[in-house]
Formats: sequence, C-alpha cells, structure tokens
Amino acid sequence: MAPKVPRQQQPDFPRPYTTVDVVIFTVLDEALKVLLVQRPLDTSDPYPGRWALPGGFVDIERDADLLACARRKLLEKTAVRSPYLEQLGSWGSATRDPRGWSSTHAYFALMPAQDVQLAKGANAADVAWFEADAALAGPSLAFDHAQILKAAVDRLRGKVEYTSLPAFLLAEPFTLPQLQKTYEIVLGRPVDKSGFRTRMMAADFLEEAGVVESASHRPPMGYRLKDRSMPVFFPRTFSPRGEP
Amino acid sequence: MAPKVPRQQQPDFPRPYTTVDVVIFTVLDEALKVLLVQRPLDTSDPYPGRWALPGGFVDIERDADLLACARRKLLEKTAVRSPYLEQLGSWGSATRDPRGWSSTHAYFALMPAQDVQLAKGANAADVAWFEADAALAGPSLAFDHAQILKAAVDRLRGKVEYTSLPAFLLAEPFTLPQLQKTYEIVLGRPVDKSGFRTRMMAADFLEEAGVVESASHRPPMGYRLKDRSMPVFFPRTFSPRGEP
Repeated sequence: MAPKVPRQQQPDFPRPYTTVDVVIFTVLDEALKVLLVQRPLDTSDPYPGRWALPGGFVDIERDADLLACARRKLLEKTAVRSPYLEQLGSWGSATRDPRGWSSTHAYFALMPAQDVQLAKGANAADVAWFEADAALAGPSLAFDHAQILKAAVDRLRGKVEYTSLPAFLLAEPFTLPQLQKTYEIVLGRPVDKSGFRTRMMAADFLEEAGVVESASHRPPMGYRLKDRSMPVFFPRTFSPRGEP
Repeated sequence: MAPKVPRQQQPDFPRPYTTVDVVIFTVLDEALKVLLVQRPLDTSDPYPGRWALPGGFVDIERDADLLACARRKLLEKTAVRSPYLEQLGSWGSATRDPRGWSSTHAYFALMPAQDVQLAKGANAADVAWFEADAALAGPSLAFDHAQILKAAVDRLRGKVEYTSLPAFLLAEPFTLPQLQKTYEIVLGRPVDKSGFRTRMMAADFLEEAGVVESASHRPPMGYRLKDRSMPVFFPRTFSPRGEP
C-alpha cells in the first residue's frame, strides 16, 4: 500500500454516491424467494413505501472494502454472518437515484431459510420474503432494483445448470431428494432423477453426515458440503436430452 | 425517473471516489496484448511513472452512466468508438488508492489492432501495448490493476472456450484460418483444425464477405460477424478430447 496522501493533495470535484445492494435468495415453501425491505414512508428519502433490495451507502469509516460492506448489510437484515456471497455487477448513472449521480455494487447471497432472523433495521418500514418471479412481475421496486433482481435471477438460474450452487440454499444435513427438489425449484422444471445421484456423487462436493431421522423404514443418508466457500462446476449442464 | 431532490435534502457524508478502468485487449504480433498507460512522473498523483490500466474518475457532468464513462476513456486512448465492451466487476476499498476510499468499475474491451490510434491524452506519460502475460509477470502495475488485469485475462480465456469472442479481435473480413489462429493465441494452445470449420459454421455467427485477395491459387473466403453487439455461445467447450 502506498503512503496516505495529504488532504490538500486530494482531488476536489463532485463525487457520485456509492452504495452496495444485496440480492438475498432462499428456498421457502417450495419457491425461490428474495428478501426485500420496504422503504420508510415518513421521510424525505426517495421512493417512500416502495419495496427495495437491502443495501445502502458505503460507510468509509466502517467498511474496509465492498465485500465487508455487503456482509454488514446482510448481517443487519438477516443475522446470517457468512452465507455464500458473489459479486453480481454494478449499476451507475446520473438518473438512477433522484439525489444525484450514484453507482451501486450489487452482490447476491444464498442462504437456508432456517438460518435467517429477519430484522427491519433502522431504515426500513418492513422486511419480507417475496417469490422472485412475483417480485419481478409485481409493483415496481425502488430505483433500478427490478433490473438488478432480474440480473441476479438470470445469473442464479444460469449457474444452477452447471454448478452445485443450490446446495447453499439448504440447511445441513440434507438428503439427495431434498437437493434434487431444490435444483428443480430454482430451475423451475423437473430434473431427471435417474442421473441425479450419479451426477452429484461424480462432482465430489458432498460428504456424508450420517443417516437422517425419518419415518421411513430405510432412513436416507444426510450430506453436507465439503467446502462452503465456493461451488463446484459440472462438466455438463442439466439441459434436457435433445437440447444443445 | 423520480423528480430531482432539492440540494438541502441530499445526504451529506464523506463519499468514496468513483472510477472506471478499462482492460483493452487486442491480438498483435501473434500475442494477446493489453493497453497500458504510464502515469505522469512530475505530479503529486499516486504511483508516478508506473504503468496502469486506462481509466479515471467518473465525471458527473459528462458521463450519463458507467458505460458512457468507459466509452469515453476508450475513445480518448484508442480513438475506437464502439468496440466489444463487457463489464468485468468492481473493486473498492479504503486502501486501494492512497488518496482515500475508492471503488472502480472495471470493463474489458476487444478490438482489432488495426483500428487503434494510440493517444496518451492529458494525464499519461506514455501509452503502449504489452503482452498480457508479461504485464502480469513484470513490474507491478499501479493500484490493484494487476488483480483487475488477472481477472480480465481469466474471464477472456474462460469465455473463449465456449464463445465467438475472439472474432471481435479481428479486422473484417477475416478468414477461418485467421480466426482459428486468434483462438489459439488467446487460449495459448492449438485447437483441433478438423473440427474448427464445422464448429464455427454450426454456431451461425459468420456471414460471407467475399473472397479475400491472396497469392494463393485458391483465394480463401472472407467473413464478417452477423452481429457485432454480442458473442454467440457454443454448446460445448474447446477442451481437448479426453478432458471433462
């Protein structure tokens, strides 16, 4: 790191606002859900009462970097400390925030619903899980958040075709049928059952976590991820036979 | 767009610097090259004399959005108006710029070397093409630009395995052998010739642009891209047989 520059040598011109927004996904009630916060009604802030992605301004005193800022927003809203978190992209323009030129760094997070303790925090009227597709089709979100959410859903569905990402949406231990169901919920279509077990085992990202309690006379094996820091990439996609 | 907020309602707190940096790739002298600018020697700016990616501060008066800012930086350095341009990611922290908390939005561009007229611009001592691998292995770049360049090279090489991206590095019209050579230069390894033509034709992104002048007694067909706005995705990667 280079030495700090004296304040008088810092360039002085109008700076854009810098924010971080997080698209938080889970699977709940057999649907892909996204966490939204309702903006306060009784303030002079833009988009009062509208639903938005959780996020906010970078705090240069508290946030060491963009990822730390994203983790802080996540922790404030969900009390989850270290879910899977991936940078999605950035959006910036003169018009996306009526307060002035602003750019946001967007991340997406995957977490098991059971882990989450929702908290409105100081700057929200309400916080709730919405079905991802309904949030895109419903009343428009604040700022350009519908565009960001759309990009996150597309990225997640695209990656689910060839990665172990859906496992990050499940509490451990989970069974193979639970994992398959999660793939199907995120993709929005059935996945060939006969190849599923072989494929998951070949990708070598699961480890046995003991038999799961069950009413079944043959209780299923429970699994956990070998590495919760990143997904495994499969050599082929889940595309149905006959498609490219 | 929501109405402008009066200045007195604009939140007032220290804001990070916002920059845009562009990793500009071409193929020249049978190598993947990246455009770097040398930072001025005789200023109080950080990293004097060091090589860096072209870029700089967002100008809220001139830049409508991040992409417009990236296009402006590109045009200033290369005189190329509309090359292929893709968002790479963003990097932001308290320490990456000694002047204070800053975040940069990084893009990468692909352009034919023939189109480029290099210009130092007002804020550079020099500008030049460097071999991408040499730039990563050589004296360290300013700021975290080595990290950004590494991410861009990885992204490009990764995508070349399954997209038509290398075609954006060639001046039109180009021949199939020239296109194959470009794939090989970017990937850093030979590509199976017998399958190459079939594969390119099946991907349906080229159109014939007439026979190219040549000393050969059977002059080759020249091609151009059907659509220069985005690449085509192939169903399979270029991985050699036997690899996953």
